[in-house]
Amino acid sequence: MFKAEKSALSAALASIKASINARNTIPILANALFERSGEDLVISGSNLDIQITATCSAGIAADFTAFTAPYALFETAVKSMTDGSITVENVAAAGGRIDGIAIKSGRARIKMPILPAQDYPKMKTDKLNHGVGLGVSSLKQCFRAVEFAMSTEETRYYLNGVFMHTHPEGLMFVATDGARLARRLMPMVDIDEEKITGIPAVIIPSDTVKTVSRLLPDAGNVAVRLSDERIEFALSGLTIVSKLVEGTFPDYQRITPANNDKIIRLNGKLLAGAVGRVLTVSNTKGSGIRFTFADGAVRLVSKPGENGEAEDEMSAEVEGNLEIGFNGSFMLEVIDSLGSGDIEMKLGNPGDPAMIMRPGETNSFAILMPMRI
Amino acid sequence: MFKAEKSALSAALASIKASINARNTIPILANALFERSGEDLVISGSNLDIQITATCSAGIAADFTAFTAPYALFETAVKSMTDGSITVENVAAAGGRIDGIAIKSGRARIKMPILPAQDYPKMKTDKLNHGVGLGVSSLKQCFRAVEFAMSTEETRYYLNGVFMHTHPEGLMFVATDGARLARRLMPMVDIDEEKITGIPAVIIPSDTVKTVSRLLPDAGNVAVRLSDERIEFALSGLTIVSKLVEGTFPDYQRITPANNDKIIRLNGKLLAGAVGRVLTVSNTKGSGIRFTFADGAVRLVSKPGENGEAEDEMSAEVEGNLEIGFNGSFMLEVIDSLGSGDIEMKLGNPGDPAMIMRPGETNSFAILMPMRI
Repeated sequence: MFKAEKSALSAALASIKASINARNTIPILANALFERSGEDLVISGSNLDIQITATCSAGIAADFTAFTAPYALFETAVKSMTDGSITVENVAAAGGRIDGIAIKSGRARIKMPILPAQDYPKMKTDKLNHGVGLGVSSLKQCFRAVEFAMSTEETRYYLNGVFMHTHPEGLMFVATDGARLARRLMPMVDIDEEKITGIPAVIIPSDTVKTVSRLLPDAGNVAVRLSDERIEFALSGLTIVSKLVEGTFPDYQRITPANNDKIIRLNGKLLAGAVGRVLTVSNTKGSGIRFTFADGAVRLVSKPGENGEAEDEMSAEVEGNLEIGFNGSFMLEVIDSLGSGDIEMKLGNPGDPAMIMRPGETNSFAILMPMRI
Repeated sequence: MFKAEKSALSAALASIKASINARNTIPILANALFERSGEDLVISGSNLDIQITATCSAGIAADFTAFTAPYALFETAVKSMTDGSITVENVAAAGGRIDGIAIKSGRARIKMPILPAQDYPKMKTDKLNHGVGLGVSSLKQCFRAVEFAMSTEETRYYLNGVFMHTHPEGLMFVATDGARLARRLMPMVDIDEEKITGIPAVIIPSDTVKTVSRLLPDAGNVAVRLSDERIEFALSGLTIVSKLVEGTFPDYQRITPANNDKIIRLNGKLLAGAVGRVLTVSNTKGSGIRFTFADGAVRLVSKPGENGEAEDEMSAEVEGNLEIGFNGSFMLEVIDSLGSGDIEMKLGNPGDPAMIMRPGETNSFAILMPMRI
């Protein structure tokens, strides 16, 4: 039916793994769908929320008919074969009806049952009326810069993802869970600018954000198609289709502090080290740290707890003295999301949210609510 | 109190990690014991069954007093520091009583509570009256060759380890769970021969077998000291003391087949590949494989199941035709325990246990019970 190299088949199967949920109640969703597209073999998996399709170069025989086979078994069987060429054949039951396939390599033969391709619940992609090309590395950077702030609370489902909307200077990506917020602008230079007009504002689910970041290659242009309900990312033979989160993202501009006039500039990596050290005595991830900015330095002191006490100090450019508390783990995530180099903090009063960004940034930054220590 | 390099301190702490069980009911067992031994710092952990001690070169001040500190917190604190020198100091509470320590590096300071060293339940090692030196790489090979056959059934606690006893030609290591057995002889050349006389036959617990295999370096001579109740392994500043399993190991010689006259010789790696492929359709780890030995080949067929069917075939030197069933997972473990190269099987009738070994071996082999397929 078809013949493919073990390495190519394994790679395609690995790509779609994230879409297969073996513990679902619909039996056919434990299967992968094998179809033909021109001279290529196309393998898909779905959990009804996200569908991943990978292309695999293969020699496809005239008798090929689309089928679905148990993903886990097919994948293990391919992996167990020796390197080289693998053949997949139809197996007919008594009476001639095709009821299985056999995977063959050398003298080994592994037979497994199949389910009909026409029963597979493929996600429809015919109404994705908007399309735009985005630099994939820029897209991944935007996701990486904001995904830490996504909420995981199921009751606030409209925060369980990344909000994407058009902006006069590009595409804005935003995530928040109420305690922190991150936004990052993708500039026009990374966007197929002519096609950006009219793109709806959408909330891309957390799982999809992570899957796109992990699976798509690091270079090239990803073709994005979307409607109000679905979004598709396609690049280099890999296609990810996802439902969007229904709901309204809050008006995040309202909580952006406008009057933070105390400016701190310091090295992100050194700050992360100090925060990590002070956090060692925290009982839970949520433990707070008191930051004292004064006289060219920032001093960090742990919230007193039963485990012990910790403190550290580092140099910083400080304009305006302030003592303020933050969640140390959240602070670490913000620093990590900004990448290496210096970072800038704009602080107000001890009760005001802080803005944290790469120096000079105006459209991309994180907002962190203070904690009473 | 003392000063040490972060890397040395981290390495010593990592070595004793396996002995610390944070979820125990005795608070001091969550702590590590810090003592001085001459010019060295000695750090110990214990779960009352196994105690690990690691030596760390350090600059020890005159005010050093032994103490115990929370292992997890101490280890995380050391890890969080920048590379270089770390200082540990006593911290006195009001009134001058020492109630804590502070770990310092640069401007960072992490303070934590301690518990008195005299309350720490150190395992006694003064009655280990037998002592012998063993080549550590040979010891690890012996453990590796038999540990797969140890039982994990708690009701058969006397099988939850490796039986070690003296043998006219060396030291014999044996493990069995009733369905399979493995024995391996450590030859006299790897043993401090003069001191082997009178060493008691003992059962070394599974956890200790794994800890010794993982922690001890790969070269050198391990100093073994033991009594009927305890065993100690010491090499390169690392000491592992363990309780022994109380109980009687079964007379394993009785089940060694004497009349297996069908001899098979084949490549272990190729056989493992074939077994792995046929196992892919198994539902559970226990699934059986039917082996047919005949005409210069062995044919493997899966036990029919709902998942599908699998078969494979490979060349083998076969003396005597036979069809026999084995647990495929157990067979894989046996092949793995024998290392690379050819393996030899001595088979009897389809109901008789099989002997599997490196060609020509007489004292070291595995025994596998057959399965009805």
